[in-house]
Amino acid sequence: MITKQEYEQVREEALTFLKQTGVVLRQDEIDAFEVADFGLGRIREIGLQLVVYVNTERHCAKELVLLPRQTCPEHLHPPVGDSPGKEETFRCRFGTVYLNVPGEMTEHPKAKIPTGRDEHYTVWNEIVLNPGDQYTIPPNTPHWFQAGEEGAVVTEFSTQSTDEFDLFTAPDIKRVPEVQT
Amino acid sequence: MITKQEYEQVREEALTFLKQTGVVLRQDEIDAFEVADFGLGRIREIGLQLVVYVNTERHCAKELVLLPRQTCPEHLHPPVGDSPGKEETFRCRFGTVYLNVPGEMTEHPKAKIPTGRDEHYTVWNEIVLNPGDQYTIPPNTPHWFQAGEEGAVVTEFSTQSTDEFDLFTAPDIKRVPEVQT
Ligand SMILES: [Zn+2]
Ligand SMILES: [Zn+2]
Repeated sequence: MITKQEYEQVREEALTFLKQTGVVLRQDEIDAFEVADFGLGRIREIGLQLVVYVNTERHCAKELVLLPRQTCPEHLHPPVGDSPGKEETFRCRFGTVYLNVPGEMTEHPKAKIPTGRDEHYTVWNEIVLNPGDQYTIPPNTPHWFQAGEEGAVVTEFSTQSTDEFDLFTAPDIKRVPEVQT
Repeated sequence: MITKQEYEQVREEALTFLKQTGVVLRQDEIDAFEVADFGLGRIREIGLQLVVYVNTERHCAKELVLLPRQTCPEHLHPPVGDSPGKEETFRCRFGTVYLNVPGEMTEHPKAKIPTGRDEHYTVWNEIVLNPGDQYTIPPNTPHWFQAGEEGAVVTEFSTQSTDEFDLFTAPDIKRVPEVQT
């Protein structure tokens, strides 16, 4: 659960990051700009802010914003129908992103797991993305990411997005936000 | 044919537009940044500058730069193998883009055809894109576009790009640039 006030404040902060990065949104995109707290009520630690530019059956693009040290929790995009699952490229525009994917465990990772949630993070190969850096995540591959101290803006280029099929490692995660009214 | 000097000058101008728009490129992307004169030797009128961020079998993204009034000539992306053809979304980041697609002829279009090349432009439904505006072009659909007086920066989100299969309306167009050495 997230209070209306907290939701609006996080939203404004994230929109300010976009503005500072030089990303121009239309008014209808600003109105639709989304805060996802994944149902955990710990928005500043575990959450994601985003706008969807386009999402057709064949291609998709979004702008993602992370507050300082905010984490998008571990998930994967499974096969759906004829599709092998969503393939996505993260391109960092502002700040630093610590992206974790399967592979050799990074010895001194920069990302820090939100307190009490270690068991819900299983991949530990940390890729550091600074502005201009990008990484493509194959379908059906677990990943999670955290912003550095400055926060981050990340453009996502991908195949079709079907959020409702995303699988989160933590069983208590809800993708659709619950805002206190 | 384009001289080496002209190529380099256009390249620098286009990279300056990107910088002013806040687009951060890595050094390897700057090195690979491309000037396409379509083999016509009229680069400031008919041409396109671009960098490919990612191009997999399933998704693609590019940054396109147009000099003031520069035109990307009419072309379409035909079906290739199992694919119905490239589907692309143009999102304007800077300047104004006059995008032309099939449909009702726009009465007072803002785009102006490069001298002597009217016959190579057949679609006249003009869509005006300012920063934040975007438009999705279905596969196998002719389109062309021109920047306004300021030039333009456009992000392209799409399915796989296979430039070698693109069909240009003008028979004298060559997609691969010929630079005088
Ligand atoms: Zn993902
Ligand atoms: Zn095209």
